[in-house]
Amino acid sequence: MKIWQKNIDVNKDIEAFTVGRDRELDLEMAAFDVLGSLAHVEMLESIGLLSAEELKSVQAALKQIYKAVESGEFVIEDAVEDVHSQVEWLLTQRIGEAGKKIHSGRSRNDQVLVDLKLFLRASIEGMVANTSALFEQLISLSNTHKDKLLPGYTHLQIAMPSSFGLWFGAFAESLVDDMEMMLAAWKITNKNPLGSAAGYGSSFPLNRTMTTELLGFERLNYNVVYAQMGRGKTERILAQAMSSVAATLAKMAMDVCLFINQNFSFISFPAELTTGSSIMPHKKNPDVFELIRSRCNKIQALPNEIAMMTTNLPSGYHRDLQLLKEGLFPAITSLNECLEMATYMLQHIEVKDGILEDKKYAYLFSVESVNELALNGVPFREAYKIVGETIENGTFEPGSAVNHVHEGSIGNLCNSEISDMMNAVLVQFNFEKVKTAIDKLLAD
Amino acid sequence: MKIWQKNIDVNKDIEAFTVGRDRELDLEMAAFDVLGSLAHVEMLESIGLLSAEELKSVQAALKQIYKAVESGEFVIEDAVEDVHSQVEWLLTQRIGEAGKKIHSGRSRNDQVLVDLKLFLRASIEGMVANTSALFEQLISLSNTHKDKLLPGYTHLQIAMPSSFGLWFGAFAESLVDDMEMMLAAWKITNKNPLGSAAGYGSSFPLNRTMTTELLGFERLNYNVVYAQMGRGKTERILAQAMSSVAATLAKMAMDVCLFINQNFSFISFPAELTTGSSIMPHKKNPDVFELIRSRCNKIQALPNEIAMMTTNLPSGYHRDLQLLKEGLFPAITSLNECLEMATYMLQHIEVKDGILEDKKYAYLFSVESVNELALNGVPFREAYKIVGETIENGTFEPGSAVNHVHEGSIGNLCNSEISDMMNAVLVQFNFEKVKTAIDKLLAD
Amino acid sequence: MKIWQKNIDVNKDIEAFTVGRDRELDLEMAAFDVLGSLAHVEMLESIGLLSAEELKSVQAALKQIYKAVESGEFVIEDAVEDVHSQVEWLLTQRIGEAGKKIHSGRSRNDQVLVDLKLFLRASIEGMVANTSALFEQLISLSNTHKDKLLPGYTHLQIAMPSSFGLWFGAFAESLVDDMEMMLAAWKITNKNPLGSAAGYGSSFPLNRTMTTELLGFERLNYNVVYAQMGRGKTERILAQAMSSVAATLAKMAMDVCLFINQNFSFISFPAELTTGSSIMPHKKNPDVFELIRSRCNKIQALPNEIAMMTTNLPSGYHRDLQLLKEGLFPAITSLNECLEMATYMLQHIEVKDGILEDKKYAYLFSVESVNELALNGVPFREAYKIVGETIENGTFEPGSAVNHVHEGSIGNLCNSEISDMMNAVLVQFNFEKVKTAIDKLLAD
Amino acid sequence: MKIWQKNIDVNKDIEAFTVGRDRELDLEMAAFDVLGSLAHVEMLESIGLLSAEELKSVQAALKQIYKAVESGEFVIEDAVEDVHSQVEWLLTQRIGEAGKKIHSGRSRNDQVLVDLKLFLRASIEGMVANTSALFEQLISLSNTHKDKLLPGYTHLQIAMPSSFGLWFGAFAESLVDDMEMMLAAWKITNKNPLGSAAGYGSSFPLNRTMTTELLGFERLNYNVVYAQMGRGKTERILAQAMSSVAATLAKMAMDVCLFINQNFSFISFPAELTTGSSIMPHKKNPDVFELIRSRCNKIQALPNEIAMMTTNLPSGYHRDLQLLKEGLFPAITSLNECLEMATYMLQHIEVKDGILEDKKYAYLFSVESVNELALNGVPFREAYKIVGETIENGTFEPGSAVNHVHEGSIGNLCNSEISDMMNAVLVQFNFEKVKTAIDKLLAD
Repeated sequence: MKIWQKNIDVNKDIEAFTVGRDRELDLEMAAFDVLGSLAHVEMLESIGLLSAEELKSVQAALKQIYKAVESGEFVIEDAVEDVHSQVEWLLTQRIGEAGKKIHSGRSRNDQVLVDLKLFLRASIEGMVANTSALFEQLISLSNTHKDKLLPGYTHLQIAMPSSFGLWFGAFAESLVDDMEMMLAAWKITNKNPLGSAAGYGSSFPLNRTMTTELLGFERLNYNVVYAQMGRGKTERILAQAMSSVAATLAKMAMDVCLFINQNFSFISFPAELTTGSSIMPHKKNPDVFELIRSRCNKIQALPNEIAMMTTNLPSGYHRDLQLLKEGLFPAITSLNECLEMATYMLQHIEVKDGILEDKKYAYLFSVESVNELALNGVPFREAYKIVGETIENGTFEPGSAVNHVHEGSIGNLCNSEISDMMNAVLVQFNFEKVKTAIDKLLAD
Repeated sequence: MKIWQKNIDVNKDIEAFTVGRDRELDLEMAAFDVLGSLAHVEMLESIGLLSAEELKSVQAALKQIYKAVESGEFVIEDAVEDVHSQVEWLLTQRIGEAGKKIHSGRSRNDQVLVDLKLFLRASIEGMVANTSALFEQLISLSNTHKDKLLPGYTHLQIAMPSSFGLWFGAFAESLVDDMEMMLAAWKITNKNPLGSAAGYGSSFPLNRTMTTELLGFERLNYNVVYAQMGRGKTERILAQAMSSVAATLAKMAMDVCLFINQNFSFISFPAELTTGSSIMPHKKNPDVFELIRSRCNKIQALPNEIAMMTTNLPSGYHRDLQLLKEGLFPAITSLNECLEMATYMLQHIEVKDGILEDKKYAYLFSVESVNELALNGVPFREAYKIVGETIENGTFEPGSAVNHVHEGSIGNLCNSEISDMMNAVLVQFNFEKVKTAIDKLLAD
Repeated sequence: MKIWQKNIDVNKDIEAFTVGRDRELDLEMAAFDVLGSLAHVEMLESIGLLSAEELKSVQAALKQIYKAVESGEFVIEDAVEDVHSQVEWLLTQRIGEAGKKIHSGRSRNDQVLVDLKLFLRASIEGMVANTSALFEQLISLSNTHKDKLLPGYTHLQIAMPSSFGLWFGAFAESLVDDMEMMLAAWKITNKNPLGSAAGYGSSFPLNRTMTTELLGFERLNYNVVYAQMGRGKTERILAQAMSSVAATLAKMAMDVCLFINQNFSFISFPAELTTGSSIMPHKKNPDVFELIRSRCNKIQALPNEIAMMTTNLPSGYHRDLQLLKEGLFPAITSLNECLEMATYMLQHIEVKDGILEDKKYAYLFSVESVNELALNGVPFREAYKIVGETIENGTFEPGSAVNHVHEGSIGNLCNSEISDMMNAVLVQFNFEKVKTAIDKLLAD
Repeated sequence: MKIWQKNIDVNKDIEAFTVGRDRELDLEMAAFDVLGSLAHVEMLESIGLLSAEELKSVQAALKQIYKAVESGEFVIEDAVEDVHSQVEWLLTQRIGEAGKKIHSGRSRNDQVLVDLKLFLRASIEGMVANTSALFEQLISLSNTHKDKLLPGYTHLQIAMPSSFGLWFGAFAESLVDDMEMMLAAWKITNKNPLGSAAGYGSSFPLNRTMTTELLGFERLNYNVVYAQMGRGKTERILAQAMSSVAATLAKMAMDVCLFINQNFSFISFPAELTTGSSIMPHKKNPDVFELIRSRCNKIQALPNEIAMMTTNLPSGYHRDLQLLKEGLFPAITSLNECLEMATYMLQHIEVKDGILEDKKYAYLFSVESVNELALNGVPFREAYKIVGETIENGTFEPGSAVNHVHEGSIGNLCNSEISDMMNAVLVQFNFEKVKTAIDKLLAD
């Protein structure tokens, strides 16, 4: 059953090819499709296209379907093309003619658009929550291990003293900036495309401001041509925001894989969190972090995939856009799993103490020596030369104390300032407003 | 002359290979390098590492260099490795020992970081100004041509009536969302990395809050390891924001190339703004828009290039990062040129009137007919079937009036609401605050 | 059951995260895993690590499993980690201790490597066959419609006469070059990694030349470190070859979508091969080609995804590589479907005749006029000027005959030369040699 | 001066925007533009479009220009748009009317196409030569250091014994497969597009087979529409082949940066081949390899950039294609420099001996112990368990001898077989044939 069914049968193979994985992927949008319809019908009634009675019966039936979705009973039947057709079919079955009217003033195009926006809004909320949990874990580890020193590398060469306080804290602060990107994606997502119909508006006297409020959107995608142009663009921008989080995770995973390597041995994990080898009985492999790295690098490639699939398409809807779900939806799940798994693993990380006592790290302190001379009045470049010469002729005597006091340094991590920055970003999402609107829409 | 010169000569070929295009590209950062140093020395004096007198002479010399940069006299000499070395060398030549002291408490790493941030901040301001000008041009065209109709396509098939009001306005609104991305890039850029030294902080009692204020940064990159981690990341995020503007421009350029094609003939440009063919004397080619499309697609590939060059690098500085300038700096220039050129071309666009009078566009009005039936009480699906049948048996009688009244539709473009949205984003950049700080730093 | 099971339980969530989609994707490699084992055990017997009797019983059991795979009965059980473990477990169950011995002298790493190579070899054969069918269809259409003219565009501007003969034939010839890339991928794939164990070889006196012959490989991946390094690389190179075919298909799909647009109307398809609209009853949308374009653009992004997931990984195996299957395997299926669907659609394409009679195409013949003057002795640049002036002052008189005779032109398509080129590439794959080896391995 | 100059002045800004970097980049194609013209005019004479006398004077003038290019005297003047116009202008100046005739039967489009093909052919020859030199260096190092052991890592965990023989040899063998890709790019490049004019052929009775032979091309791009379609495609495919070499280099560079890190200390370079730090006097940074890695990762991103700039463009020439040179030409130079620099650096690499004597590498030998048990008849899985238990209870006694004898293993590197494979690929390029043709074309 296709809602655009005409009298000519579309070839079966064609249908399989064009439906693709929609039945499977659309399931994730089912609840949101119902929400979009709830808002649409309430508006239709307000402009006289549904009677008050019809509205009541449609609302009741839609809420019933919503519950079916929530309880996992809702399915998209094999004979049905997509989630929108399935919902409409159920509706018509249950309440008859009134069910058919809910398609007035909209097209599958703006229905998909609004479903996607609502789904992505919920997805962002989930990813923000998981990022926030990882952030807290990192800040906590940074505070706990703030006095444990670590070699700092530049060019992968031993450079200067660092600390686990700095190392954990760096990834926490990185997530703050990632949330700025996510916030931009949120703002772009949180605008209402409903009412744009096939991308050219409708001759029905729709009240788009009303559906905007009912669905808790912050604003409208005003221009109806732009509303349609947002398809593909919204996905790409969200993928870019996700790629930012992914890049932070991937870099952390790379560091972890390096630091548990036996040549570094800075950290370890309990045996039950690592895996073995089929031919090397001594191996305890950091597979989880290798897979986090790999998944996150895949996510880093996603914005490019979306751009490749949408660039040079003229304005107006193209069927090409259907396939963007296949990349984006699993990526959202994958990023959430990576965030959860990273948080979980870090709860069990074991950090080595006394690393810098190994004499191969002595040169770490050469800058300290240079600075000490400089603080005593020797011009920096002279001090640098003097210490350089003691290193070359083997008379260099390293210190071991690290006395860094400025903002963001080993001795003054500023973790609470970093937490403040995070909170200042998070508060702007204002998920509460969305929740209030949706709750109201679903209330009996 | 390399500031890390030791007694062993680095092979000449190696030097050429490693210096690469730095002398050329660093010139763009020269003014900002001076600004960073002005803030750094003022802070050094405040913590007793420069005397008041030394500060005075250093400031005077730096301001002199700044003027040389502004007047185009500043060059990076062949014997000098990069902009930082050139500035330091000029300084030492002019004021002697005090010049050498300005390197206290910092490293080339955080010097590059702060130069980059200041340069990118200025670049963002320029791109925002150019985007804003294009936005105004589009809104103006949308208002001017709001009554001229155009076929709207879906699947590149004639679908429903659209208008030049919608078409121009759609790209304007697209730029609003693009500016949300640019704002996120701005917020991430506008944090102070100075004081992070080689990425592990310094034993000098630096006052990073003070340099943050002096340079007009909104906040600090607190954690010094993260400050260094921001290299590559800031570039990638800015490239993503730029790619968003570029995607809007590329799509508009694709539409333009299609619409001036003789099979569409919806728009044209004066002959002096098009180019000819070496063997076809009748050609008037839209080269400018083809090149905008191509340049913008190149910019769309840039975030991926940066990700490819930085992914899987462990934390800490790597020389790899040096090469990111080669992609990013020309892309900023290119995007600015595309924005300016698009604005210029649109000032001369000629829009055809009466397009829909051609009978091949009659079916555009089929949805109107369906909706009319629906407004008269026929359930939508039924109305759809009825009109579909008149089309198939050749009795379809199209209307021609378009009566769209809802928000964002042909008859109600909401351009002033779209302008309000734009302004609400633009005001958050607060470029004035930055300007005030820089003016103060340069004041005598 | 994991074959590296030690006494510590690996956390359940970790296991789910690390196994990922392996059970599902590994099924595609099951037959090849058995083939690899058949070759390995025959070799083990030859160097005395299996007795003749053990070999016989292992071979019998493996062939039984192969048949189970072919008949669809083979499954990877939930308690089992991957295909290799499942096969080994079945074997041990059926023939006891001898089953355990087949892992001698290899690692999961080279087992996966050889499975992948065998699977990709078969995949290449399939894609080549589908490409070949499309090629024949295109050549046939080119010959059939060789006299039907079409406007040729440059800059999307009407330029010179073209023909359906040229248009179909161009995509055919494009596939020839794509097969050159596929052949390179084939040569790189068709080398034996078996015996490289975990990437560092084995202390068993393996005979790798023997397994190379048994499996029909052309050569060895000699160096065992390189054999492992081929993981990720082989996938990337094959993806590049696939992207070349995909680019040809995507371009053809773009042309098709343009040419069935009502402003062009050069081609059409029977109604049952197009789809409709939920609100526009007159629409006959080219969804199949839009989806071919979109799928192929996704495939074009795949090599980059693989590069992003593997770049900057040091040599040696990393778990990251496991995830490459998730992108590559479905892409192979998708490309095959696109090739089949494109061939199918083209079997039903309807080509319009007399297109150039429309007077808007008159200027197409301006170059002909220029050339005519030139053939009569007027220097080309002069002729160009003369015709240009007649166009500008409205006195241009177009011809309509097209008399192109050189190689590859409208009047001399050289389709048989193009077919010869294709065959010259195809013959180099020599799939027969592979088939002979595999048949022998499976013979009773 | 533009060769398509009509009476209307093209706006100056437009001209600057559209010419872009052509004057600079076209210089690299100047010699090839002359070669293309030499072949074209010889053919024109053969079909009666030039007199024998005209041919002589044109040939003489062209050869003079060729010499000017070779000696570096040739420039593209500011008033001239591109290399083709400059050559034509010089010609007309020197020999008058006959100079104008050489444009008969071709367009700037096929002129650029043939120039590009000839330029890329020469570029491939250069890259192959540099790759070959690096290959020889690697094989030589592999042979020299074949007895020096190294830990082999999987999951970056100490796994099994490896050797410098294997390590160097692996990258050599990797280059063999890279040359398979380069060979495919060569075959696709080495086909003649001349005579396709603007992409739709010509009404002149051109003899394309003749120009194919004169220019030493292996075959024709027959179909003229495909000849034009090869633009962008050829570049993308060459970029893919280059990305394969780049991926090999980048991985080697990553290993080098890891192995000279002080936690590994497996290799080193003389001080004059490393660089220092501005604040850390002890640093000897591997900048050359970091930059090789970075440049090569940039090259790995290039095929995607080209795809992004060309995908979804309908068939026929678009000005977009002009910009592909900006990415590809510098990439060719950069890859050559990376190959040369890598070869140079490797000539000076210092390899540490006795690495495995450090007791942290003892577990490397656990597989050897398992295999020993297995060779003595213990089923592999049992042997694995027994050794695993001795490791866990601390009684494991590692061996130290490595006795690997199979093909491609530590004791049997098969470097001469690898060299044979390389030669078998290299011989197929047959650069000699091209040289012979070009020499003949230039002969007096």
